[in-house]
Amino acid sequence: MIDPRVASGLRDLPPSAMIPRERTLATFRETFADFGFVPIETPHIERMEVLTGKGAGSDEVLRQIYEVTNKGGERGELALRFDLTVPLARFVARHINELGRPFKRYAIGSVFRGERPAKGRFREFVQCDFDAVGTESPVADAETAQVIHAALTAIGVPAFTIAINNRKILDGFLASLEIADKSGPVLRAIDKLAKIGREAVADELQGDSTGDVPEANRLTADQANRVLDFVERGRGGVEVLDRLDSLIGSEPKVLEGSKNLRTLFDLLDAAGVPADRLVVDLGLARGLDYYTGAVFETTVDGWEKFGSVASGGRYDNLTRLFTDQPLPGVGASIGLDRLLALLEEAGWAKGASTTVPVLIPSFPGADQRVAVAMGARLRAAGIGAEVYPDAIQAGKQLQYGSSRGHRLAVIVGPAEQEAGTFNLRDLATREERKGLPQSGLETEVARALGLGGPGAAR
Amino acid sequence: MIDPRVASGLRDLPPSAMIPRERTLATFRETFADFGFVPIETPHIERMEVLTGKGAGSDEVLRQIYEVTNKGGERGELALRFDLTVPLARFVARHINELGRPFKRYAIGSVFRGERPAKGRFREFVQCDFDAVGTESPVADAETAQVIHAALTAIGVPAFTIAINNRKILDGFLASLEIADKSGPVLRAIDKLAKIGREAVADELQGDSTGDVPEANRLTADQANRVLDFVERGRGGVEVLDRLDSLIGSEPKVLEGSKNLRTLFDLLDAAGVPADRLVVDLGLARGLDYYTGAVFETTVDGWEKFGSVASGGRYDNLTRLFTDQPLPGVGASIGLDRLLALLEEAGWAKGASTTVPVLIPSFPGADQRVAVAMGARLRAAGIGAEVYPDAIQAGKQLQYGSSRGHRLAVIVGPAEQEAGTFNLRDLATREERKGLPQSGLETEVARALGLGGPGAAR
Repeated sequence: MIDPRVASGLRDLPPSAMIPRERTLATFRETFADFGFVPIETPHIERMEVLTGKGAGSDEVLRQIYEVTNKGGERGELALRFDLTVPLARFVARHINELGRPFKRYAIGSVFRGERPAKGRFREFVQCDFDAVGTESPVADAETAQVIHAALTAIGVPAFTIAINNRKILDGFLASLEIADKSGPVLRAIDKLAKIGREAVADELQGDSTGDVPEANRLTADQANRVLDFVERGRGGVEVLDRLDSLIGSEPKVLEGSKNLRTLFDLLDAAGVPADRLVVDLGLARGLDYYTGAVFETTVDGWEKFGSVASGGRYDNLTRLFTDQPLPGVGASIGLDRLLALLEEAGWAKGASTTVPVLIPSFPGADQRVAVAMGARLRAAGIGAEVYPDAIQAGKQLQYGSSRGHRLAVIVGPAEQEAGTFNLRDLATREERKGLPQSGLETEVARALGLGGPGAAR
Repeated sequence: MIDPRVASGLRDLPPSAMIPRERTLATFRETFADFGFVPIETPHIERMEVLTGKGAGSDEVLRQIYEVTNKGGERGELALRFDLTVPLARFVARHINELGRPFKRYAIGSVFRGERPAKGRFREFVQCDFDAVGTESPVADAETAQVIHAALTAIGVPAFTIAINNRKILDGFLASLEIADKSGPVLRAIDKLAKIGREAVADELQGDSTGDVPEANRLTADQANRVLDFVERGRGGVEVLDRLDSLIGSEPKVLEGSKNLRTLFDLLDAAGVPADRLVVDLGLARGLDYYTGAVFETTVDGWEKFGSVASGGRYDNLTRLFTDQPLPGVGASIGLDRLLALLEEAGWAKGASTTVPVLIPSFPGADQRVAVAMGARLRAAGIGAEVYPDAIQAGKQLQYGSSRGHRLAVIVGPAEQEAGTFNLRDLATREERKGLPQSGLETEVARALGLGGPGAAR
């Protein structure tokens, strides 16, 4: 016998997890499509060179790469993708001439990282990415936030906040302090502000408490304070931008970023995205090298501990590894697994082990052709129906339905068969209406399900 | 620069391929769910031991396996799945006690085989499987054919044939000829009948023409003829079964299979599956060891050269590798890639590079907030709308729409903006209605798209 377990860090998704998952993904697909994003798919396996090209992924991600070999293949040639962005860059570089611009694509798929397994962290997980490539328009920036807003609203997240910044503001501000060359360690330190507090970050910026900040990367106490003031006072409504002047003067790069941010908020206002879903966050950096303009992070109100559930931003040149043609773009990724874990923990996920509303038991002693025919009639009327295949004790069949979440049972025992009738049982309340004529099947079931009538069931 | 090609045998799926693909998969999911099948997902990566256990896959499939290794992992421990059946067996063995019976699941996902690349054959391809595990009922057998019928009908395949057999008939018949021990080579030879003709198969059965049939596996001329008569005369309507007696006498195993087949056809008749979609094919074997009862193969009428697009059957014990608990079941797999290639070649696939009906150009000189706001209004009314992000020459924006398959353009130039109106252009006919009031946006667009009204768009 072979142990039926999965490998470390991987998992099976049973129906109770998959049903909300598929519902969520269907909603995301509809949302992406509503804005004119179109789907693409790339292989799970990429050439190693594509994945490990300079700048493709961080060192940490590259250490976590899964190598793939088949018989006759050389080791080190192939690997599993660790995100959907590098494959997008490769895809666009390869196909841009047929695709035209802008190219607005979405992609939903598994990515693989050999991380240390931990609660809620898996080595295979699903990303949902959407990007508009080949445009520098702020309309595309705004649309990134619109799509996040529409997607989270559509799946029923009651309240969330999209934090928005423009990397030019932060970069320009650091330049105005003449510490642009230290942006890496500064941004990493800032990222910890919410977690470890102002004092600890100030220490780290000045290299006081930790021995591992090299001399060249240390800020003076004044620089550290100005950075922290900027970040702490830089979160709020779009009026935060009005306070910018007093904080940093008139560095041109900052003004450019600030102007983009105002346009972006104007467009989001025109699009009807409620202002209380949006916040300017001048400390938001989202990694180091990749983003060059607008950046986005989304937290669910009251559930900030889950981190960002939808993040992204604008980049100058997605495809630089693969082609000379410069292709700017903007996009974001929704973290499906994190979001579903949050919905589950918040009690917002609707639990059910089935999506089919009607169960038709195979009543002992009855002709199964009748059950099969009634199932076919209901489906033809747009109402999902499951026929229990085995003519076991009726109570056990009804139990199967109640435990899985079927709402109704259509029961035809030998007597009903004789009389041309059926009984309709509500599996939650256990109320049963008896002796209904079989000719009225679709109408009765649709009514009991609260549907307008047959055909309106979907 | 890195070459943006994909590895040998793999492929990118652009929007023109993905749009019909996603539409097809959504229809399959709906069909599966309508019958009470629920989704599961298992990792793409399985433990090697699970995949290579005795009987898990054929030798050929095992030679094609992709090994997976991450840093710190041992070679030979992990591999990519080559089908969805072995993972189902592992999943069911692991979870059956929580799942209950019958367990009806569907799974849609990529599988990987390092086959020699060829036209239309890829090393990563998608399988769509549905199975009912833990039941021996003929209702579940019939439902397998019902689901195939419903799925192909729903995606618009105009005519197809589901060939059905019961392995017990073929096995019993070979036993009655006392050649049950030669079933392997006999079934392999029979499978070639359509391709190489009766004479060549008769030769092969007798070991005449090929030197590689060992003495022990050869049939006599009489045995070969009786096998071929049986197979050739064994294809047709359910009345074929009435001819069985004259062909093979009353071997009990044959009678058992024949009885199951009659019940199956009775149930399919009750379910309203048209008789001309079904055929009995007593020569249908579907592989050697795996199937033990009903077997199914589906060809599209006039496109038989593509082979079977949906196949499956009943098996005695899915989980024998992993548990002592015997779990019979029945199911089938729809070959998505093959089916889509067929739809494409037959001209039945609807080509489009977008699914969003409305394009809203960013008219040069106009305030983009107006375009963004109109897009949001249309989406709120259930009508997909794409805002072109860059205010380039209007003709180029309209060209973008016509070439991608947008149906309408909602145009608001500076003059319309001033007047509070918009122009509605049909991108196919190039007719443009001018000066429509912006307040009537949703109604006008819905009417032009032939929808009942706003809200009825989906």
